[in-house]
Amino acid sequence: MKIIVDAFGGDNAPLEILKGCAQAAAEYDLDVMLTGREAEIRRVAEENEISLNRMELVDTPDIITMEDHAGDIMKSKSQSSMAEGLRQLAAGNGDAFISAGNSGALVVGSTLIVKRIPKIKRPAFAPIMPKNEGFFMLIDGGANVESKPEMLQQFGVMGSIYMEKVMGVKNPRVGLANVGTEDHKGGELQHQAFQLLKQTGVNFIGNIEARDIPEDAADVVVCDGFTGNVILKLYEGVAMTLMNKIKGILTKNLKTKIAAGMIYSDMKKLKKAMDYNEYGGAPIMGVAKPVFKAHGSAKAKTFKNALRLTAAYVKGGVVEEINESLQSLKGMDSNE
Amino acid sequence: MKIIVDAFGGDNAPLEILKGCAQAAAEYDLDVMLTGREAEIRRVAEENEISLNRMELVDTPDIITMEDHAGDIMKSKSQSSMAEGLRQLAAGNGDAFISAGNSGALVVGSTLIVKRIPKIKRPAFAPIMPKNEGFFMLIDGGANVESKPEMLQQFGVMGSIYMEKVMGVKNPRVGLANVGTEDHKGGELQHQAFQLLKQTGVNFIGNIEARDIPEDAADVVVCDGFTGNVILKLYEGVAMTLMNKIKGILTKNLKTKIAAGMIYSDMKKLKKAMDYNEYGGAPIMGVAKPVFKAHGSAKAKTFKNALRLTAAYVKGGVVEEINESLQSLKGMDSNE
Repeated sequence: MKIIVDAFGGDNAPLEILKGCAQAAAEYDLDVMLTGREAEIRRVAEENEISLNRMELVDTPDIITMEDHAGDIMKSKSQSSMAEGLRQLAAGNGDAFISAGNSGALVVGSTLIVKRIPKIKRPAFAPIMPKNEGFFMLIDGGANVESKPEMLQQFGVMGSIYMEKVMGVKNPRVGLANVGTEDHKGGELQHQAFQLLKQTGVNFIGNIEARDIPEDAADVVVCDGFTGNVILKLYEGVAMTLMNKIKGILTKNLKTKIAAGMIYSDMKKLKKAMDYNEYGGAPIMGVAKPVFKAHGSAKAKTFKNALRLTAAYVKGGVVEEINESLQSLKGMDSNE
Repeated sequence: MKIIVDAFGGDNAPLEILKGCAQAAAEYDLDVMLTGREAEIRRVAEENEISLNRMELVDTPDIITMEDHAGDIMKSKSQSSMAEGLRQLAAGNGDAFISAGNSGALVVGSTLIVKRIPKIKRPAFAPIMPKNEGFFMLIDGGANVESKPEMLQQFGVMGSIYMEKVMGVKNPRVGLANVGTEDHKGGELQHQAFQLLKQTGVNFIGNIEARDIPEDAADVVVCDGFTGNVILKLYEGVAMTLMNKIKGILTKNLKTKIAAGMIYSDMKKLKKAMDYNEYGGAPIMGVAKPVFKAHGSAKAKTFKNALRLTAAYVKGGVVEEINESLQSLKGMDSNE
């Protein structure tokens, strides 16, 4: 299997990306194609004694940054490492593409360069997030600000397949994020999506409340991209504020510092469990070939883990299964 | 000032409601009208030696529960303590109404019995919530699942007035909850609401991200009721899950229990600061007379505090000021 890697995506590129690739190539038996500034990649690898064994380099002059607009990937940043990686994937020169760079650009680039799976209306950004025990998928986490009911239905199908095939969750529970658990809750979008989700083959458990999401409400949380973006970011914000408050307590004075020492290892474990970086990132679902977004702040270990998940995305035959599922899906007769 | 109180609203009615009223009547120089089952009120007051001094009782046979549908307040539950309280308010027999009961029913009942302020399109449920330091208002926290841009504009105006007049925040910063901070972010609703909010006299600081809400992004967070409900409940859910995790650590073994003892008072303070019960509840904004929702779980102290805020809602002339502001508001020329 060959995975195409954006060597210049994310806060710690290219060094941590290269380290992660070298570890993954050895551990998971992968070939890697790196896109980016070849000279710089070679220099960083040499300086840090990173082997470029099993890695092929494709020289691209440009980088798309977090400040760039998503659409720039098709225009001023068409010579970026991300755009080139997606073109290589579309051309069949690798099995999947992974980047820790600009999420918006990755969604736009995937859609326009790699294209969608037939019948898929819109791709979704689908982060894997921590909950009380384990993790869940949030789909759509923000790729589409405006959503139609059929899109939410497809999100449910795609999320269910990914969670089963890649994350190993048996018969994943798919829930619709809503303002209450009763069937009639929500607006027009939720009413229609509810009916459509009932007609799919997925294990649809109905409406779920935001309050219950951190407590294992569902394995796949389906919502429009606006709501998903709010959930994703508020989740992170509340957890961060609270952890900072507790840090403040634990460093307040000598007594609390002693207490901190006594619970240090448990608190560290908790912080790790609540850190969604640990789950490696977010697949871009609905694209015709596997595309994976690693966290922007990923260091070598997290990126290596993301590469493992990307390989599982390929091996699990997720794209093929989505394709098949959509052929038999009811409620999908409307035109593109 | 006379405040009408639903004696049978909330988890701890009527005992804690009566206690809170007795304390508030004495401390804040208030007259109270209690609606509910008079015989039970008198019995509970006597058994618990609660003075009914300055309290007038209006006997109503029925109670609207959390399980009832919001619309029941106009139908099968029209003889409930909540419905009667709202009728008393509409008739001018008191200055404000407060209930710890069913929020949905309170919004519907307020709108249909007390009516809206002229030009107000929809009332909003506006909880006061904790942030890193202090509090903010979330408006709309869930009264309206579907919202129009003009409604969001009005929410910004109403929230700003309330935060200034009742909560004492000078020149409150009004932010629009969105998927990014740039002006062009969001869907059609956000685009139009952004332009309308710019034209109001409020201190509009533009779009804010959900991630920043717990870290003091704004004093008034404006959004549609679907998004607001998700924010309200996820905020609570993430905080609760995390606090439970930490509790698990602190009670894990002897060593961690000793550590717990050393940070006990600080953790208790933190829990209190993050508990939005402490802020007393949520005004129903846009109604022609002050209506206040106290927390369903409110005990005497919280309910007393809610009565203080309700009195401030009256004294601050919030309804009158909203009325005046709307006369001069641009972008409000569309028909009801």
